[in-house]
Amino acid sequence: MSAAVTLIEVSPRDGFQSVVPIIPVADKVAIIRALSQAGLKHIEVGAFVHPKAIPQMADINQLLVELRRGDDNCDSFESIVLVPNQRGAVLAAQQQCQRVNFVFSVSEAHNLKNVRKSVDQSLQELRAVQQVIEKNPQMQLRVSLATSFDCPFAGAVDPQRCLDVLAQVTDICVNVQIALCDTTGRAHPFKVEQLFSKAFEQLDNSHQVIFHCHDTYGMAIANVAAAYRSGVRFFDTAVAGFGGCPFAPGASGNVATEDVVYFFESAGISTGIDSEKLRLAIQLAEKIEGAQLGGAIRLLNRN
Amino acid sequence: MSAAVTLIEVSPRDGFQSVVPIIPVADKVAIIRALSQAGLKHIEVGAFVHPKAIPQMADINQLLVELRRGDDNCDSFESIVLVPNQRGAVLAAQQQCQRVNFVFSVSEAHNLKNVRKSVDQSLQELRAVQQVIEKNPQMQLRVSLATSFDCPFAGAVDPQRCLDVLAQVTDICVNVQIALCDTTGRAHPFKVEQLFSKAFEQLDNSHQVIFHCHDTYGMAIANVAAAYRSGVRFFDTAVAGFGGCPFAPGASGNVATEDVVYFFESAGISTGIDSEKLRLAIQLAEKIEGAQLGGAIRLLNRN
Repeated sequence: MSAAVTLIEVSPRDGFQSVVPIIPVADKVAIIRALSQAGLKHIEVGAFVHPKAIPQMADINQLLVELRRGDDNCDSFESIVLVPNQRGAVLAAQQQCQRVNFVFSVSEAHNLKNVRKSVDQSLQELRAVQQVIEKNPQMQLRVSLATSFDCPFAGAVDPQRCLDVLAQVTDICVNVQIALCDTTGRAHPFKVEQLFSKAFEQLDNSHQVIFHCHDTYGMAIANVAAAYRSGVRFFDTAVAGFGGCPFAPGASGNVATEDVVYFFESAGISTGIDSEKLRLAIQLAEKIEGAQLGGAIRLLNRN
Repeated sequence: MSAAVTLIEVSPRDGFQSVVPIIPVADKVAIIRALSQAGLKHIEVGAFVHPKAIPQMADINQLLVELRRGDDNCDSFESIVLVPNQRGAVLAAQQQCQRVNFVFSVSEAHNLKNVRKSVDQSLQELRAVQQVIEKNPQMQLRVSLATSFDCPFAGAVDPQRCLDVLAQVTDICVNVQIALCDTTGRAHPFKVEQLFSKAFEQLDNSHQVIFHCHDTYGMAIANVAAAYRSGVRFFDTAVAGFGGCPFAPGASGNVATEDVVYFFESAGISTGIDSEKLRLAIQLAEKIEGAQLGGAIRLLNRN
């Protein structure tokens, strides 16, 4: 097991999606370019979702065209696009996306609310997405299990429930990336370590396991530490802690990329990211109208 | 080893000392009373330091008189006062303080800068403070080792250096509280766990070991988790993350009491603190002019 870690930047999707004013495509391209130049090799750039549901993602086709063009280092990172269904995967393949991120919830209540499907129906949809992947071998699959720890409607999620859904996913997919997501930010380090340890016992090593977490309750870095301790080496992060909840002013969203870089690098664990170059991406994030930002390191760098 | 933890509230000292406008004594008493009523049983209320060095602490005598008076539950918590020398300990004893907190630094560079003494001279001063304690059996001693992990001048502190200083302290004092302090906020969870584990190996169990940390780099909760894992059951905290550095706007200071309460209580570990009642103290902290606040839970509670 390697000591080095890989960060997957999710701000252009999980961060931007909650910003109300539409961010110009050129601004999105600029921040994605800055992230790439700072060393991020995996960037979730947007989503093929209904524009009425998430207007901020309506520009996904234009964005992907822009990213493939010109001098923007589009070949230097893997572009990931969230898809809620087979149709999204087909559209992503048409746009030469390198990876689709199929998301559904471990919690029935959250899955019904979020994608209007039962978990069984989402697993059926995953089979359909898997078929698209098989027809497009240049495109890879990631599966994100939302509410792996806690559900906004049903509260704490039984770890065995998460492990059971995980087993069903790995029955359908081989050599896949799988993210266990702390959607609400209520995961506790002790439980994070426990769940990932059990997940690793259950999984064969053909899968890459990702931890996706939010810093809503200030627990994100402690949770990252716990996940690392249990063997996780892939982490979703968002520059400037992008993605704060609009109903909780000042509360941060995704764990901040720069804080995770600091956490690992200060312990001698390589992230491959250049903190100095990352500051440009932070500055661009700070300029986005309507952004809810978080993180600690960013505030120190202001001087 | 008990699973429950004890929080020691330090905002009226470590938090207030960096606030430039002088906080009226009545406001200090109000916040201390709110903290006591929320269940804090140990509160560092101020310091016997030179008023020119830290003007905010100049009211310590008046504050202690006020706290002993009337309906303010002064008997429901242990009042702790920071002292830099024997003279401070004598003054504290005259004011019927229950505990003095003698602070010096593991790092020679920081100790020279902070108290204008070598570490050996501070250990000599500790012997003098210990004599005051022996003459005033109603007063107890706490020793805080600043820069136990990292020094603002000399960088990372060798753990063995800290353990050596710790051994010298326990040669001088028996049955004492000892805090290892992450003064700069640069301690890393992996190192926190390592240092406390070694400290527990070295110490006999007559001592209470405290972790004092700052959230400057967003690592405080992860560090609290690491310290707990290694056996620490006493934690310094400051309501509302009081104590931010005036040179880093928005950067938080001491780890927030309410965040530490959330961290432990959500794992079923008792703190004895009533989070609802703590909100009054948070609100009072938010009203203090010139306060630099931090923490995550506080922001969620604003709705």
